[in-house]
Amino acid sequence: MTTFVLFGGTGDLAKRKIIPALFSAFVNGRLDKNFMFIGAAREALADEDFRQRVSASIESYCAKDCGSTPEQLQAFLAKTHYAKIDAREAADFQGLKEKLHTSESNATLFYLATGPDLFEPIVQQLSVHDLVSGNARVVVEKPLGRDAQSARDINAALRKYLKENQIYRIDHYLGKEMVQNLLALRFANSFLEPLWNRKWIQDVQISISEQVGVESRGDFYDHTGALRDMVQNHLLQLLSIVAMEPPVNAGADSIRDEKVKVLRALHKFTPDEVSKKTVRGQYRAGAVDGKPVISYQAEPGVPTASRTETFVAIRAEIDNWRWAGVPFFLRTGKRMATRSAEITINFKPIPYSIFGASQRNLRSNRLVISLQPEESVELFLKAKEPGEGIRLSDVALNLDFAEASSSRRVESYERLLLDAMHGDLTLFVRDDELTAAWDWIDPIMSAWQSDTEGLKSYIAGSWGPAAASYLLAQSGSSWGEEFVEG
Amino acid sequence: MTTFVLFGGTGDLAKRKIIPALFSAFVNGRLDKNFMFIGAAREALADEDFRQRVSASIESYCAKDCGSTPEQLQAFLAKTHYAKIDAREAADFQGLKEKLHTSESNATLFYLATGPDLFEPIVQQLSVHDLVSGNARVVVEKPLGRDAQSARDINAALRKYLKENQIYRIDHYLGKEMVQNLLALRFANSFLEPLWNRKWIQDVQISISEQVGVESRGDFYDHTGALRDMVQNHLLQLLSIVAMEPPVNAGADSIRDEKVKVLRALHKFTPDEVSKKTVRGQYRAGAVDGKPVISYQAEPGVPTASRTETFVAIRAEIDNWRWAGVPFFLRTGKRMATRSAEITINFKPIPYSIFGASQRNLRSNRLVISLQPEESVELFLKAKEPGEGIRLSDVALNLDFAEASSSRRVESYERLLLDAMHGDLTLFVRDDELTAAWDWIDPIMSAWQSDTEGLKSYIAGSWGPAAASYLLAQSGSSWGEEFVEG
Repeated sequence: MTTFVLFGGTGDLAKRKIIPALFSAFVNGRLDKNFMFIGAAREALADEDFRQRVSASIESYCAKDCGSTPEQLQAFLAKTHYAKIDAREAADFQGLKEKLHTSESNATLFYLATGPDLFEPIVQQLSVHDLVSGNARVVVEKPLGRDAQSARDINAALRKYLKENQIYRIDHYLGKEMVQNLLALRFANSFLEPLWNRKWIQDVQISISEQVGVESRGDFYDHTGALRDMVQNHLLQLLSIVAMEPPVNAGADSIRDEKVKVLRALHKFTPDEVSKKTVRGQYRAGAVDGKPVISYQAEPGVPTASRTETFVAIRAEIDNWRWAGVPFFLRTGKRMATRSAEITINFKPIPYSIFGASQRNLRSNRLVISLQPEESVELFLKAKEPGEGIRLSDVALNLDFAEASSSRRVESYERLLLDAMHGDLTLFVRDDELTAAWDWIDPIMSAWQSDTEGLKSYIAGSWGPAAASYLLAQSGSSWGEEFVEG
Repeated sequence: MTTFVLFGGTGDLAKRKIIPALFSAFVNGRLDKNFMFIGAAREALADEDFRQRVSASIESYCAKDCGSTPEQLQAFLAKTHYAKIDAREAADFQGLKEKLHTSESNATLFYLATGPDLFEPIVQQLSVHDLVSGNARVVVEKPLGRDAQSARDINAALRKYLKENQIYRIDHYLGKEMVQNLLALRFANSFLEPLWNRKWIQDVQISISEQVGVESRGDFYDHTGALRDMVQNHLLQLLSIVAMEPPVNAGADSIRDEKVKVLRALHKFTPDEVSKKTVRGQYRAGAVDGKPVISYQAEPGVPTASRTETFVAIRAEIDNWRWAGVPFFLRTGKRMATRSAEITINFKPIPYSIFGASQRNLRSNRLVISLQPEESVELFLKAKEPGEGIRLSDVALNLDFAEASSSRRVESYERLLLDAMHGDLTLFVRDDELTAAWDWIDPIMSAWQSDTEGLKSYIAGSWGPAAASYLLAQSGSSWGEEFVEG
């Protein structure tokens, strides 16, 4: 049987994401029959109190209760327990050990939904109590460091007590169906990979835009910023999957071997390059979806003179044979015009149009992989409009998964939880990936610290500072939402 | 104003195809205001009699009367006239000339929907009466010869009186929307052309299957056969568009220059190659769509010991740098399982599957351009099924023109009529194309004549003789309808 121990079990992430994902897996019969769920936190709670919270979390964050019956909810709660654990109290871990011992668990998954400062104390205690030998696995959540050194420190602390293949560093963007489909699209088809290089691709754009501001996390966010919060992890993970070479096989380490090669091949910026190839911004007051919103500096918990960036755009470059000269434009921001996460592969224009001058300034082919708000794959190409003469127009070939398959769509947290339970590391970040990503981020952070002019402002509800458009215009490109044919 | 003179105006093709196409163009406002239509045939008919036939033809063969109002039909009939013309009677042409003179026509289109034996007499008389100077154009219909020599004779006869750019040799497959779209797909997009060669394409299949038998044309058909009736024209025209190099521009002669190069590069078979690379068949009694049908030899007008082929499959090869080694499988037949016309581009398999043995025997990517019964473009590729693990399945990216555009779909005859009226030769066959196609066909016909063993029989309602499957199996391929994954 499997036991799932959730540290930070009363926290926000547990409530909003992890518990609903676990319940959905349970409802869909994806968990062991003898599965046990133990929530752990510092608070003193009876099992029954915790079950009420679990029940409330499912009600609020599981769409239509994940399609469950009331009996299924009761069955799930019957498997749910609580352990009061202070990360620094050995006695509390002794209690946990006894709970686990009774359950005769042969595989335990510890999910550390806590701040990174608690990773080492928790793992140390788990080790002292002999709970992380054998099959035990440990999932850790972002933020995994705030620079290359602190990420190395976290890795070193975890590795004192765990083998690397016991550590599941979660990046929930990797759990998205379309990210995995990108691997299938690239490596199970013969018609994309021949074009997947500097010869045929003009640029790649990876954009994650949010409409929300910092919500209740102003204080945390102001010490973090968009570069650490989004670029170092999610955007670079997506980039590494887009850009990787074909792996030896689809095994976790083969894929991660190729991803880390991409991250290491990222061209590290000099301070001068940072000022030319990055744009950072902070939102002013504005309106999102027609509703007025306050400026970043007016958000609760944010200092009024804050210089923290809420928007980043970067022209990343990959120094290898496949990608030399192809810009990878990364962009993320809060309080943007829409909520979306998209990877766009812009193919080069055709070398010459035989269809005459009127047909010459057309947008070239592109493959758009959407992760948010809906997941989809679309290939945009030119076709002839019906009727006389040749009039070309943009047509989308749409990969419609809803139509193509009756299989259940699995949310990314559920997918990643199940992978961790099954010991599949493919969609988790390895230690060397984490540090390679930070090694690329560090010079950007340093240059920003000594450049007091660099922070631009942008109106909440816009697409970020104008400088982000200029960044692409210099390469003869433009962001997807800006392109106009003609 | 434009005048349209239709020789063979009381014939079957006029009734079923040409008159409805002309009327549809009229209803959709595509014809000159002062347009005049003159039907011509040997029969003595009053204008009014001919108008009744025109009216009946529209009623029977124009779906929903081409969306016309009764007023539009009356307006069209008011522009409709009849001329009794015996192709060998000079006086009849004098009468036609007077009719045309009255109309002050500045552009006349003569459509010769007659047997090829009448082409020369008609064109000679038109020339004698000075009707084919200036803007006049002449459309001719298949059959354009029965071998290379007779095709050259027809060309020479026409060229005695006409310049090449006045001659519109019609091949109605070229008028299909998807054939023109193939040009757009190939040359307005950057993502197909790099793959459009021997390096990435496994084979090309062009298949036109009919469910009908020889209908009332048994006598004609038995002197023709499927090779002359379908392969020499339609199949080779489609092949030349699939295989052509990028033309200098989209002008008629630039495109036809490239098409003729393909036809000339077709590898001409030795008698030994004919027996290995061609399959011919004749249908036995069987059932089509569940209804019993008689054998070819039992059809009215067909000799009981006929050796004429009603089915052909050929492994054609193009001897040039782009296509060397890539089989172009051509297939056509009567009394086949379904009615369809399709071009399938089969891409090569991926070089290696990283997804393990279970995912290795998958059908590789293909682009399917359907011309009949519906026109469509579909790109079949592999995607990951939603859910855990990587399970690949075939998904179609479908270019949905109905959704993509509100433009009216134009039937091929209407399209080609309008092109001829506007002097656009792009979709008509040039003299050198015609003879190059016959030059490739001749050695096949000769070899068949001396090989009495070669004709296979097949059951009506099947996909033709088993030998046609074997032909592809030798190249490690199979016809689209035969492929089974696993």
